[in-house]
Amino acid sequence: MSSTLTPLSEIADVLRSAQRIAIAAHVRPDGDALGSVMGLALSLRAMGKEVYALLEDGVPTNLAFLPEVATVLTPPYADFEIDVAVALDTATHERVGEHTKAALARAPFLIDIDHHPTNPGYGQMNHVDGTEPAVGQIVYNLLQAGGFPITDAVMQHLFTAISTDTGSFQYSSTNARTHQIAAEMLTAGLDTARLAQLLYQTHPARRLLLLRAMLNEMDIRAEGRIASWQFTRALMDEVQVQPGDTEGLIDTLRMIDTVVTAVIFEEMPDGKIRVSARSKDQRLDVSAVCGQFGGGGHRMASGARMKGPIQVAAETFLTALEHEVRRLA
Amino acid sequence: MSSTLTPLSEIADVLRSAQRIAIAAHVRPDGDALGSVMGLALSLRAMGKEVYALLEDGVPTNLAFLPEVATVLTPPYADFEIDVAVALDTATHERVGEHTKAALARAPFLIDIDHHPTNPGYGQMNHVDGTEPAVGQIVYNLLQAGGFPITDAVMQHLFTAISTDTGSFQYSSTNARTHQIAAEMLTAGLDTARLAQLLYQTHPARRLLLLRAMLNEMDIRAEGRIASWQFTRALMDEVQVQPGDTEGLIDTLRMIDTVVTAVIFEEMPDGKIRVSARSKDQRLDVSAVCGQFGGGGHRMASGARMKGPIQVAAETFLTALEHEVRRLA
Ligand SMILES: [Mn+2]
Ligand SMILES: [Mn+2]
Repeated sequence: MSSTLTPLSEIADVLRSAQRIAIAAHVRPDGDALGSVMGLALSLRAMGKEVYALLEDGVPTNLAFLPEVATVLTPPYADFEIDVAVALDTATHERVGEHTKAALARAPFLIDIDHHPTNPGYGQMNHVDGTEPAVGQIVYNLLQAGGFPITDAVMQHLFTAISTDTGSFQYSSTNARTHQIAAEMLTAGLDTARLAQLLYQTHPARRLLLLRAMLNEMDIRAEGRIASWQFTRALMDEVQVQPGDTEGLIDTLRMIDTVVTAVIFEEMPDGKIRVSARSKDQRLDVSAVCGQFGGGGHRMASGARMKGPIQVAAETFLTALEHEVRRLA
Repeated sequence: MSSTLTPLSEIADVLRSAQRIAIAAHVRPDGDALGSVMGLALSLRAMGKEVYALLEDGVPTNLAFLPEVATVLTPPYADFEIDVAVALDTATHERVGEHTKAALARAPFLIDIDHHPTNPGYGQMNHVDGTEPAVGQIVYNLLQAGGFPITDAVMQHLFTAISTDTGSFQYSSTNARTHQIAAEMLTAGLDTARLAQLLYQTHPARRLLLLRAMLNEMDIRAEGRIASWQFTRALMDEVQVQPGDTEGLIDTLRMIDTVVTAVIFEEMPDGKIRVSARSKDQRLDVSAVCGQFGGGGHRMASGARMKGPIQVAAETFLTALEHEVRRLA
């Protein structure tokens, strides 16, 4: 179809000439998904456009403090009509969710803006740039390219997108432009410290209970090089887990200096076991191990779904992983 | 004496004309102390100067990965002679430590560069700016003002100073210039992600054991508004605690959304109990509560020393604190 790097000014032209626009992102939205959708939505609304922000799974509770998130729509969607649809931060069209995909299909024109390098470019217009640390950063550049309004509420969303997808400017995807944008937002008066406090320094007690359970139950093997944890439904029920509570737990396992790979096994409602694996060593490709169980992803961050029970899945996966770890040295 | 905001270009002139320079920072050095000292030292050495980096307590183990830290001197100091002395990040002259203060006194000229607003300006030349988030940021500005070399090693130290003193760009002290400097360093090729990984994502297993103990033992009272923990010598011995291991533990207590004040009680080798208190509510002044026990500090972060045993000290302090918390609402 078209190039996967349509200039942002051309995308801005299409959005400028549209009046009714739907914007969506992936299921189980994170900060970059929600922040990009609402950052773009609020800017376009400030231009007087009719904008529908669609999230199949709604707003995660830990991001509910952000402005105007009450305007996010979830299925079943009403019968609104749209001229242009935008999918953000979504590697495959299906990942917006079934109802959302159907709603986006009401427009004759789909714009796909993403930073997942595997994104095939499923829109009529695509801007897929795997070097960008966050879609929020692309959206900020898009708003500047179009001369679109960048209000305080827009900045709150886009800063959230950028900050969360870079681990507060810590991941290797962070580039000079990322910091330039933060500098511009501070100069424009954005209270980034308040956002950081709400994003990183405020958690429900539930989250500390989960962290405590993980530290009490974690399994360390292969001379401290593998750290893992089995997150059971029993604990989920006990703690009354909410979406967002588990974010970053795996990073705590990764922090141990001897660890080269960390894995969390999570019991899903359907009995399947969701495996999340991280590598800290470029030589250890966790996507290859996940691939053995029908999963995949990136070299350093990957996932799979396995059959339960959780103890059996964990032993099977960890045995395969340990085999790879032992080949390192 | 002189103004407390001598222009950085004048300080650069003094350093440029000196040949033998000693640079020191406060006892129990943190990232800003070590990073500022070594950032300035390595730049001046790159200009061919003879530079002595003095730290009364040496290099903390968690920062030992930084370049050239093996050149940091600790007491007893040899009989070197110096033309100019520099104290960085040190609110009172005494805080450099006894031996270091004596060594700095060998120079007829002391430059005091700091961001603690209480610093009286104890040098012949002083640059004390309480609006700066880190002394590392002042040193970076100083190097630019003087046209001094900013090598990769210099940047590693100054980035560490800036990043640690702003909690990875999260504290309210972070300003547009902070991000501009990070952008400049990335443009100059600094691998900030590697530094972040070493600073924040690598901890000895000991630290997770401490975190686990804290989560298992923490005391929550006053309807979840007070979180506290008693850090005993028994646990310190069991875990074989090293300097730096406990950094940030109190932030985890503060994270609980209901908490307005967090306190850690720590058994000292002399049997005294060190109290560290934090407030999350501008209306709750923890320095007033610490003042009741001979301590003090800032409104939001304060400390005291109490008589043991630790259980009695904790109950006494928490009773006084709860009294203040209950007055809030
Ligand atoms: Mn993203
Ligand atoms: Mn400092």
